[in-house]
Amino acid sequence: MKKTPKEWALIEKIRYRVQRQNSHTVVPLGDDAFVFKNFPGFSVICQDMMVEDIHFKLDYFSAYDLGAKALAVNLSDIAAMGARPHFAQVSLAKTEKINESWLDEFYMGMSHMADEYGCQIVGGDLAASPHSLVIDVSVHGSCEHPFTRQGVLSGDLLLSSGPLGLSYTGLRALRDRLEGYEDAKKRHLRPQPRLDLVDSLVAKKNKVHALMDCSDGLINDALLLCPPTCGLHIFAENLPLHEDTAKMALKLGIPAHEFALWGGEDYELLMAISPDDYDSFGGWHLLGQFTDTPGVFLTHADGKEEIKEFKGWRHF
Amino acid sequence: MKKTPKEWALIEKIRYRVQRQNSHTVVPLGDDAFVFKNFPGFSVICQDMMVEDIHFKLDYFSAYDLGAKALAVNLSDIAAMGARPHFAQVSLAKTEKINESWLDEFYMGMSHMADEYGCQIVGGDLAASPHSLVIDVSVHGSCEHPFTRQGVLSGDLLLSSGPLGLSYTGLRALRDRLEGYEDAKKRHLRPQPRLDLVDSLVAKKNKVHALMDCSDGLINDALLLCPPTCGLHIFAENLPLHEDTAKMALKLGIPAHEFALWGGEDYELLMAISPDDYDSFGGWHLLGQFTDTPGVFLTHADGKEEIKEFKGWRHF
Repeated sequence: MKKTPKEWALIEKIRYRVQRQNSHTVVPLGDDAFVFKNFPGFSVICQDMMVEDIHFKLDYFSAYDLGAKALAVNLSDIAAMGARPHFAQVSLAKTEKINESWLDEFYMGMSHMADEYGCQIVGGDLAASPHSLVIDVSVHGSCEHPFTRQGVLSGDLLLSSGPLGLSYTGLRALRDRLEGYEDAKKRHLRPQPRLDLVDSLVAKKNKVHALMDCSDGLINDALLLCPPTCGLHIFAENLPLHEDTAKMALKLGIPAHEFALWGGEDYELLMAISPDDYDSFGGWHLLGQFTDTPGVFLTHADGKEEIKEFKGWRHF
Repeated sequence: MKKTPKEWALIEKIRYRVQRQNSHTVVPLGDDAFVFKNFPGFSVICQDMMVEDIHFKLDYFSAYDLGAKALAVNLSDIAAMGARPHFAQVSLAKTEKINESWLDEFYMGMSHMADEYGCQIVGGDLAASPHSLVIDVSVHGSCEHPFTRQGVLSGDLLLSSGPLGLSYTGLRALRDRLEGYEDAKKRHLRPQPRLDLVDSLVAKKNKVHALMDCSDGLINDALLLCPPTCGLHIFAENLPLHEDTAKMALKLGIPAHEFALWGGEDYELLMAISPDDYDSFGGWHLLGQFTDTPGVFLTHADGKEEIKEFKGWRHF
């Protein structure tokens, strides 16, 4: 009897594509579950899903980029804990239009992203889906000192590790099929988790009051850092904007800072620190300051305005 | 500014439903990732996805049962490694017809299943889906001694922990809206992972040559245990069949053993042991024996026939 019906042959191909050696592996990919020796410190786990036509469209996303991004958004959560990734599991519900070469590109993109950050794909599931492609990835990592969203004090500064609103700029350029905007498109299609910052953050761990990744836009995410008794002043003229964002804002007639306030999926880190430690974080961008009065305010040279209405980043 | 747009309020409700205390928790549900102290032994991780209209239909699956089953199928993989579950993450891509009370029932079913087996729901994702409901669960567990699919020797006996084909019997009864078949329907809608057997298996670990859970039908799964140089004789008249299966087989005019050979989703355990140790495993059912000649044979009182054609359990 033939041991490899079509589905198993496909799983074999995927296994060949993603499998790596790792000294912690006890039972490798291909059994009921993956078994590994624990890493020093604490274990860190996260899981993030992407759904076709909700989070991405296949007309502007290549299989390779999608594979890389589905893992990257999880690695970003690992970075936001000050952790290191080790193992990923990926489940994919695939529609009929997804063929073998598409899958091969997808797992190649994901494997390359995994390799770049010392992570290994060790399991998951492959299922059919009648309508939409769905990708769900979980990542297992470890850390010695977890950074959380708790710990902001009134007076703390809010910083970001890079420009905000760039991914949304890229999404608009992709959706509207605009030429140019290459940096923005790249940020949207191939975001990089800020795992490069983990070592330096761990070295200054006592100065980090709170840390998270920015995936849903500055306002939405910063609100999760803000204690109930505190407020936040955002310095509108100080927000780190890429030139692609400035150009897009001009074209669309939207104030450029709106891209940073509401645009999601940048996967930069947001951090709260004491003003006394500002000089220790060169390369980070000052976004605002937590205050002892509730409310979120946008401060300009000519005054401040309260932000009272919540906007999801997909709808602004 | 209101801190809880609709989506966050929903996530808060889910958190309230699933959150538990656990002495291993370092950073609880609600941050970028979940952080925990390692358990003794090795770590065990698995991930399994269920897609609407592929793995289940909502006309016969209640939200509660679906929540329980989506976790159970993963707990079954944990049991198949001889491990104990600790933490689960659940991602759900929900369609518009899924309302808040449905979600509440779903997470209640999952929480009760988790509580029953000492597992805790600690993360995951909630997304919109334009067409089909998709559920993906990952589980983290631990074990001292992993049981794998490798290690079968020629001459080993193949045993199961319970009846096979019962879930498929239930599926047929549900699909065809038949009265009765209550045990079969229950097996399909609310399968139980055989974590109850883990302690006794670990106590006899040196006698267990290979272990896996039976999710895709006996033939499909047993083939994964069978080394390339071995074959398998299945004792047709010996297969453990529930009376609901015998009744359904009669009704449909299909030999009852076909339900066990090809029917999936029973989530019983399959084990290979030496014939010398057969007496040590009371309560287990003898299914067949591995031989030193490749090929899968069905043996009857009046001879044997080779099974040459592969059938997926959904298509038989």
